[in-house]
Amino acid sequence: MLVVDSYGVFVGKKGDRIVVRRRGEKVCEEPAGSVDLIRLSCRGVCVSLDLLELVLRYGIDLVVASRSGVPLALLVPFRAGSSIRTRREQYWAYRDDRGAFLAKAFIEGKVRNQANFLKYIVRVYRSVGPDVKASLLEASERISGLVEDLRGIECRDCDYVRRGVLGVEAEAASIYWEALSRVVPRELGFSRRRKRSERPRDVFNVLLNYAYGVLATEVWIALVKAGLDPWAGFLHKDNPRRPGLVYDLMEEFRVPVVDKPLLGFVVERRGLVSGFLGEDGRLCREGRLEVCGLLNRVLGCERRFGSERLSLRSIILRQARRIVKFLHGRRLYRPYVERW
Amino acid sequence: MLVVDSYGVFVGKKGDRIVVRRRGEKVCEEPAGSVDLIRLSCRGVCVSLDLLELVLRYGIDLVVASRSGVPLALLVPFRAGSSIRTRREQYWAYRDDRGAFLAKAFIEGKVRNQANFLKYIVRVYRSVGPDVKASLLEASERISGLVEDLRGIECRDCDYVRRGVLGVEAEAASIYWEALSRVVPRELGFSRRRKRSERPRDVFNVLLNYAYGVLATEVWIALVKAGLDPWAGFLHKDNPRRPGLVYDLMEEFRVPVVDKPLLGFVVERRGLVSGFLGEDGRLCREGRLEVCGLLNRVLGCERRFGSERLSLRSIILRQARRIVKFLHGRRLYRPYVERW
Repeated sequence: MLVVDSYGVFVGKKGDRIVVRRRGEKVCEEPAGSVDLIRLSCRGVCVSLDLLELVLRYGIDLVVASRSGVPLALLVPFRAGSSIRTRREQYWAYRDDRGAFLAKAFIEGKVRNQANFLKYIVRVYRSVGPDVKASLLEASERISGLVEDLRGIECRDCDYVRRGVLGVEAEAASIYWEALSRVVPRELGFSRRRKRSERPRDVFNVLLNYAYGVLATEVWIALVKAGLDPWAGFLHKDNPRRPGLVYDLMEEFRVPVVDKPLLGFVVERRGLVSGFLGEDGRLCREGRLEVCGLLNRVLGCERRFGSERLSLRSIILRQARRIVKFLHGRRLYRPYVERW
Repeated sequence: MLVVDSYGVFVGKKGDRIVVRRRGEKVCEEPAGSVDLIRLSCRGVCVSLDLLELVLRYGIDLVVASRSGVPLALLVPFRAGSSIRTRREQYWAYRDDRGAFLAKAFIEGKVRNQANFLKYIVRVYRSVGPDVKASLLEASERISGLVEDLRGIECRDCDYVRRGVLGVEAEAASIYWEALSRVVPRELGFSRRRKRSERPRDVFNVLLNYAYGVLATEVWIALVKAGLDPWAGFLHKDNPRRPGLVYDLMEEFRVPVVDKPLLGFVVERRGLVSGFLGEDGRLCREGRLEVCGLLNRVLGCERRFGSERLSLRSIILRQARRIVKFLHGRRLYRPYVERW
């Protein structure tokens, strides 16, 4: 991922290399073959059309994002192959047990990752005191117990399954964030999880919201590549303002891609992090670059995936392709649950 | 449509205005509200990210096109509303009589426009001699006769209807282009219609191919805006290299948007036109700009459409939306046949 996020920068090309310049001086040069995603996210940035042609030729994804991390737009090629049969299955799966099964699987992945992450904190974080550890373990057990409730919900169709699944999700989230709030450095002022729409004023929530935006971009691209319609979700209802399937598939990746690395980051660098929040309640440029850099490293990290080792970014694409296989009846879908 | 097609140009914004500069000097400035499409199509062009944000905010379509007029990519917003029900109907219509009906309608529109255009030439072109006129009228009659053959094909499903429809289309095309070749100035060396893949060496074919690329862009955007999947065609089979529905809906617009204005152009300005073709078989920059300017004027021209007067560009969007209404069973689809 090449992140372009600073004022007065120009992104062009030279031969088959991507060149970033600032006031005429070269800042960075990468062969196009080694870049999979270019993320443009600051005012005062320019790109050349030659670069866009290179990007299209190499199949690099080019994303425009807002300063606060929300993906705004994707450059979509005219001649990208596209599987119509897959999308037909996707729409019909909404009405049958396949959609309901997927809706449950996404949340099962999320909840199991939450429970495991709390146990991981207990095992790895030395700074955490024994009574906090006990409360984290208890929270983890309670969340694990909810997985059984989830499995008990009958897979009829999405509309039927949604209420029960969202109930479990909400309960798990309340336990999970309450537990996490004991680990986030107190001086950061994190008391409870607040979404972007709730206008949080503490830096950890703002960092989380920014990072979920970066994750949404990755999931969006993976779904488009797999030939799925990002708008037709199973758990998330049709909503012209939110691509439902993006928010669906994101669920199982929230903890491993965002929560875990971000918690480590704020615990380790608490002094630095508290300076990231501008008076306007937004991240400063350094904060944005740090989060992008962190997530890029995480997405590039290899994990065990079945019998293979794959980067998290490839695993997201694999899971999107596994949704396709499941819709075509070729294999069962299992959510991504990280080993802790 | 703002066409940016010249070396060393920079496209930025100032407030809510789009500003084009060349070596620091302002070439053109337009309020964002009055631009609906920006077409970037030359090397050595730069755009600012601020412009991209303005473009997204105003819902302006930004297209990257190749030098030879093929649309390459579209900037697609993350939060564009999208109708899932429409696309579900679209996929299912392929299997029932709705898809077959549309496949026939698109070609009926094309063929009727061809027949009418030949009669229009007879009526309007003073430079055409009486025996050529007689042959054009005869060709027009033969093409009109084919419409009856088309209507006789039973609407079962797309696969059933395709062969018959394509047969009629091919027969009409052969009569039509043979007739047109008598009107194209002889010095341009147009003997028969050659697609881009056939690598034509005469300027009229090259101009046609370029202009059809511009038309494809317009149709593509209209379909995306109407909530349809541009890949799921009815007449044109699924093909990962061609968005089928774009090529479907284009059929009824080929004559009014491209053939008619382009014939007028080459007849009127034959001296100029013959200089448009470079040694590489491509249009020179002046040629590309002339075609874009011509098509932009044509697309902006108002036509009668039912009881209204609409620009051709709006009519393309209306027809895309009428496909949607037809798929939902709300009204019959009629192809666009221009009054001559």
